[in-house]
Amino acid sequence: SPPNSAATAVNDSTSDEAWVWAQIKAEALRDAEAEPALASYLYSTILSHSSLERSLSFHLGNKLCSSTLLSTLLYDLFLNTFSSDPSLRAAAVADLRAARVRDPACVSFSHCLLNYKGFLACQAHRVAHKLWSESRRPLALALHSRISDVFAVDIHPGARLGKGLLFDHATGIVIGETAVVGNNVSILHHVTLGGTGKASGDRHPKIGDGVLIGAGATILGNVKIGEGAKIGAGSVVLIDVPLRSTAVGNPARLVGGKEKRSKDD
Amino acid sequence: SPPNSAATAVNDSTSDEAWVWAQIKAEALRDAEAEPALASYLYSTILSHSSLERSLSFHLGNKLCSSTLLSTLLYDLFLNTFSSDPSLRAAAVADLRAARVRDPACVSFSHCLLNYKGFLACQAHRVAHKLWSESRRPLALALHSRISDVFAVDIHPGARLGKGLLFDHATGIVIGETAVVGNNVSILHHVTLGGTGKASGDRHPKIGDGVLIGAGATILGNVKIGEGAKIGAGSVVLIDVPLRSTAVGNPARLVGGKEKRSKDD
Amino acid sequence: SPPNSAATAVNDSTSDEAWVWAQIKAEALRDAEAEPALASYLYSTILSHSSLERSLSFHLGNKLCSSTLLSTLLYDLFLNTFSSDPSLRAAAVADLRAARVRDPACVSFSHCLLNYKGFLACQAHRVAHKLWSESRRPLALALHSRISDVFAVDIHPGARLGKGLLFDHATGIVIGETAVVGNNVSILHHVTLGGTGKASGDRHPKIGDGVLIGAGATILGNVKIGEGAKIGAGSVVLIDVPLRSTAVGNPARLVGGKEKRSKDD
Repeated sequence: SPPNSAATAVNDSTSDEAWVWAQIKAEALRDAEAEPALASYLYSTILSHSSLERSLSFHLGNKLCSSTLLSTLLYDLFLNTFSSDPSLRAAAVADLRAARVRDPACVSFSHCLLNYKGFLACQAHRVAHKLWSESRRPLALALHSRISDVFAVDIHPGARLGKGLLFDHATGIVIGETAVVGNNVSILHHVTLGGTGKASGDRHPKIGDGVLIGAGATILGNVKIGEGAKIGAGSVVLIDVPLRSTAVGNPARLVGGKEKRSKDD
Repeated sequence: SPPNSAATAVNDSTSDEAWVWAQIKAEALRDAEAEPALASYLYSTILSHSSLERSLSFHLGNKLCSSTLLSTLLYDLFLNTFSSDPSLRAAAVADLRAARVRDPACVSFSHCLLNYKGFLACQAHRVAHKLWSESRRPLALALHSRISDVFAVDIHPGARLGKGLLFDHATGIVIGETAVVGNNVSILHHVTLGGTGKASGDRHPKIGDGVLIGAGATILGNVKIGEGAKIGAGSVVLIDVPLRSTAVGNPARLVGGKEKRSKDD
Repeated sequence: SPPNSAATAVNDSTSDEAWVWAQIKAEALRDAEAEPALASYLYSTILSHSSLERSLSFHLGNKLCSSTLLSTLLYDLFLNTFSSDPSLRAAAVADLRAARVRDPACVSFSHCLLNYKGFLACQAHRVAHKLWSESRRPLALALHSRISDVFAVDIHPGARLGKGLLFDHATGIVIGETAVVGNNVSILHHVTLGGTGKASGDRHPKIGDGVLIGAGATILGNVKIGEGAKIGAGSVVLIDVPLRSTAVGNPARLVGGKEKRSKDD
């Protein structure tokens, strides 16, 4: 690969971010004109800000603050982190695109930015995870707790998440400390990536790229869900699931799957 | 039917609403006298108001407001909508009666009005649905988002709900955009009326009158649940369920059902 | 037993409480020094208080207050109740110890005190239950409602809970009015101890000491779950479960169990 590929990737990512942010401002302007009752809300959350990172930091700070954990502290924390780490901004943009493409109920980027608690919980988690990686654990855990209180989405700050994620509806999602989630994964509400209670250490699921996990599915233990697999709603999964196969039921069993699908590809 | 039947229905509904509101005020007065610590709370939420619609609008505005979506905006929005649409007030009264009759833990109308997040989420949804129908979609979606944040009840503003509904406990209920729920339906917590992810357009369940859906049941796709059917707790339903039958399990199968029950009727 | 055993028990409990509180203050001091951004938060929630009951009352008051149910009212209510009832303080200490011992993700007592919504919901419930027992039902129900709104944990104030409880993750837990939970029980998120809808009166599960209930399990009706039993994630339990046995599936069936386990003991 050419020596300037990293710089090119950053430039691509920056221009992608600028394009999405321009869309969001245009949507907010259109909505503020159509609905004067929302003008002040849209101005404070989107239109008054000069960048996606500022808008997102302001919105998260307001959502997650409490009388003892002040919005100013949170705003500074989010803005400093998003400003200094382009990969977090690129992940946010990929998540916004994922909602637009994969959720038929997502009508605009600004709809996702303002209203999707799965999106907001995921962005706040990425900041908590960075704090956790830097051994700033008490602050990471305080943020984790506020995300769980406010959004009912409980992602341990140790969990490692990819990008292009859609946490649809999101209420009740629980993701444990040693879980890993790949890129372009869709997770519905009430999904658990948890432990069996029998192990310590590396004890949570590893979810491959492009996996779809249906509402209320419970995946327990250090199992591998292969790339492109599908987990049915309400399944209880205690086993590895091969790539591109489907697991359903309680306990989950494989149905159809890789061999059958390979013929169709 | 006689030419004045519509007017009679409105009069009946109005006098029913007045009777329930008088009960609520009497209950709040009794409770404020028995528990002075609650007097100020009961005065601000119920006793200071001249009508059910004012009390409900004040309570919802306070519950759903944020630092950027002000309680005054929400109060005006709720009050204007409830004042101008008697069918929304009649539905609220029918829901209050449903909780009193069908939930053994509901001790009074004021208990439901003040404390049942399923009741409050449902009333706020009806306002969001009216906004949605009037193409005021950004405001409908902002309200939808606040209802999901505050009550952990996620009803898309496009969903059409009947009246006499009981959303018991209510945490984690998710109802999709094209779902339809009939009258006198009881839905427990963690119930999903969702899509399969395979379809767009009209993709969510249609729930008949008098259906009972147990805790944690997941109903997916454009399926029909017939009048008076029962869906067992934890079921995953991907099929039509005939009227007055019972479906249980994952995947759900029919048990007993119409024929058997007809003999008992 | 000797005549002063009760006094000894109180002394033991008091000194246990003092030891845990000293640990919490030391942890908070260490964290405030390591993370200046949290110093003000840790000072207001822990370091400025002279006892565990004051810290807990302040934290719960702030978490559960609303614009109509003021934090000062709640703080006084919690502090008066915890101060006058040593058994509630002993239960809180036992719950803190349970989280430290049984949850591998719990890094300190202060982590649990500040951040575990299951712990906080449980302590607030105990106060609501005391009010309920004293026939102060409107206040008990107002508190119940706030706990459900803020933590998405819905424990009816009539339910009787033991001590040494771990409500892990906790989102979506629902426990009905006539449920009884023993000591040293672990309950994961999305667990329901509910009614079948067919009975009134004593209609909810009775959970023995040391039971473990996995994520998303639904236990319905006045059934008995024996001491030390395990209920698998996602199970739907409508039957009695003997002591030290394991129930899994939908509907749940017993697997392994008492006889097999007795040999291993």
